[in-house]
Amino acid sequence: MADGAAPVGLLTQWLTPLAAGRDARGLTRRLRPRAAGDDLIDLAGNDYLGLARDPRVVEAAVAAVREWGAGATASRLVTGTTTLHTELESSLAAFTGHAAGLAFSSGYLANLGVVTALGGAETLVVSDAHVHASLVDACRLSRSRVEIVPHNDVEAVGKALANRNEPHALVLAESVYSVLGDAAPLTALAAVALEHDAVLLVDEAHGIGVTGHGRGGVAAAGLAGLDHVVVTVTLSKALASQGGVVLGPAVLREHLVNRARSFIFDTGLSPAACAAALAALRILTDEPTRPDSIHATARRLADECGVTPSAGAVVSVPMPGPRETVRAAELCLANGVRVGSFRPPSVPDGISRLRLTARAGLTADELDHACHTITAALQEVS
Amino acid sequence: MADGAAPVGLLTQWLTPLAAGRDARGLTRRLRPRAAGDDLIDLAGNDYLGLARDPRVVEAAVAAVREWGAGATASRLVTGTTTLHTELESSLAAFTGHAAGLAFSSGYLANLGVVTALGGAETLVVSDAHVHASLVDACRLSRSRVEIVPHNDVEAVGKALANRNEPHALVLAESVYSVLGDAAPLTALAAVALEHDAVLLVDEAHGIGVTGHGRGGVAAAGLAGLDHVVVTVTLSKALASQGGVVLGPAVLREHLVNRARSFIFDTGLSPAACAAALAALRILTDEPTRPDSIHATARRLADECGVTPSAGAVVSVPMPGPRETVRAAELCLANGVRVGSFRPPSVPDGISRLRLTARAGLTADELDHACHTITAALQEVS
Repeated sequence: MADGAAPVGLLTQWLTPLAAGRDARGLTRRLRPRAAGDDLIDLAGNDYLGLARDPRVVEAAVAAVREWGAGATASRLVTGTTTLHTELESSLAAFTGHAAGLAFSSGYLANLGVVTALGGAETLVVSDAHVHASLVDACRLSRSRVEIVPHNDVEAVGKALANRNEPHALVLAESVYSVLGDAAPLTALAAVALEHDAVLLVDEAHGIGVTGHGRGGVAAAGLAGLDHVVVTVTLSKALASQGGVVLGPAVLREHLVNRARSFIFDTGLSPAACAAALAALRILTDEPTRPDSIHATARRLADECGVTPSAGAVVSVPMPGPRETVRAAELCLANGVRVGSFRPPSVPDGISRLRLTARAGLTADELDHACHTITAALQEVS
Repeated sequence: MADGAAPVGLLTQWLTPLAAGRDARGLTRRLRPRAAGDDLIDLAGNDYLGLARDPRVVEAAVAAVREWGAGATASRLVTGTTTLHTELESSLAAFTGHAAGLAFSSGYLANLGVVTALGGAETLVVSDAHVHASLVDACRLSRSRVEIVPHNDVEAVGKALANRNEPHALVLAESVYSVLGDAAPLTALAAVALEHDAVLLVDEAHGIGVTGHGRGGVAAAGLAGLDHVVVTVTLSKALASQGGVVLGPAVLREHLVNRARSFIFDTGLSPAACAAALAALRILTDEPTRPDSIHATARRLADECGVTPSAGAVVSVPMPGPRETVRAAELCLANGVRVGSFRPPSVPDGISRLRLTARAGLTADELDHACHTITAALQEVS
């Protein structure tokens, strides 16, 4: 492969042709470090409530670092559980209407943990085709038989549950899907799960802080606290921090403490991250209308781009292909607006798209400028 | 199952008998939240260099929260890469002798990411029987054929590599094993991997900051920077923070950015965690003798308990059973010393044990008291 050139090593020989293949298809991803002081209008990040830099959130994190130190120092079962962790867990459970919560160091690990702890040969997992990568990986790790059903197809879920031999079953969905921004039919899913003695697991990564006056889609549908409904939330989006939490009955929390490998064998979430999420949760509790402006902004963005309104903050704009997507995002960036550009394999249907996230706290001028910039970019690449 | 009592829900019916079974075998785990001000002597946590509360580390985290906000706001490929992330990655790579690094939000996710990105049908994975849960899960997720070889058996690794049909292969080991505290034969493993065109992946979770004057076992063995050697480190142990980093050739970093699902689909590590780890790394660079006292303490603890000396900070004390382990840890706690109690399934050989971690910065009085307390507890339960 080195073809007469200087000898190259094993990883270089292995990986270089793969990189060239990605390049040829316009699918190479590159990291673009951002500076602290950039004054771009951000419609790419998931800081939906605009709390990541809120002084109350920042100072709560500062106080926690000074009181507890920079890290949790070990796994949660050794020295990694502080009183901050348990306060965060019980506060979030109370806010969302569940009996108990358990915090993981990322939402990814929360999904892996709960699905593998409930999965196995005796559990069928029925997964919506559009669930997040962390749930797809969780299915693979679960050792369960997994049935993927078409997106939002409740009848297919019922059929899969009815035809099973496994005593247990777990249905996977998201309250607001992360790339397309549409909602799951939660009431119908919870009913069909109950009918077939199955547990419904809803990932509220993009619901918490956004839908149901911030309490998420499961609470809005009156499903929180049911003994067959489990929720995962991330702390890293509307709650402005890092980490993930599984919410459900107390018996589930105890089960996860004992069986969720990604909980047991991972260092606990840092005290600063716990404190920041707790502070964001307090703001959300005290200011229940804060999520409203997310929805107004999302409606405006969808209107301007001529796309389906979002169930949450994510406005999804289908594009002709990956190169046009990157080009449109670059045009927006050149005009001071950061948008997300999602290409395969980060899109569930293979369609590249701009992903715009509506954020609370944008000024009218910022929103006007963003809309003008994005529509001009769309026109230029179409 | 409810047997005439009030009807209980699905999860309660499912999980309650499992909890009862754990209880009956003495294997129930319970979280014990610690308070910020407890004055226990800690031989349980992994803050090996005693840096989690170091003012330089704490104030670096504080400054980062204030400059950048509490969270990274999105995945690394969207808005989650700050200049702090890239500075951490390049500093850690330079310190350990690798060309490049890539930070994940936990060490667990770093291991999942690198193994799955190099795994697949064309890659054989050969794993030491004692590797960490995150590497075991990584094997399961990799879609590779996986061969588990006996602990530290280089010949078995060579045989597995020689007998493969897959074009690629990946050998998994830890520089210091997390529960038993013994070392891998890194030089021999790297040689056998090279002989068979395989990549060696070494988890240095318990090596970084501890062995090789803090640079880890791979650097100490002169293997860092080789094109078939990859390292993962955690930021949550000696580096006092949270997260994990994969270190290796630049082409590997680019491959992970494009292919590691647990990198692409996870929110970036928080700026505060990046800054804390960077500050710890600077201290380690400036004070190269800092790890020495870890080894002196580990030798003393092993001597007093009559067990094998540790290759790093972890001193492993085999116990008669899980109940004796918990009882001994409780006796230590009652006397002001926190030790780890590891029971199945957290032990690779099924043997319950006390796990003592030697920490830099213990005073002579603290160490004397700890040794006295632990040996008395061991005597009482034996």
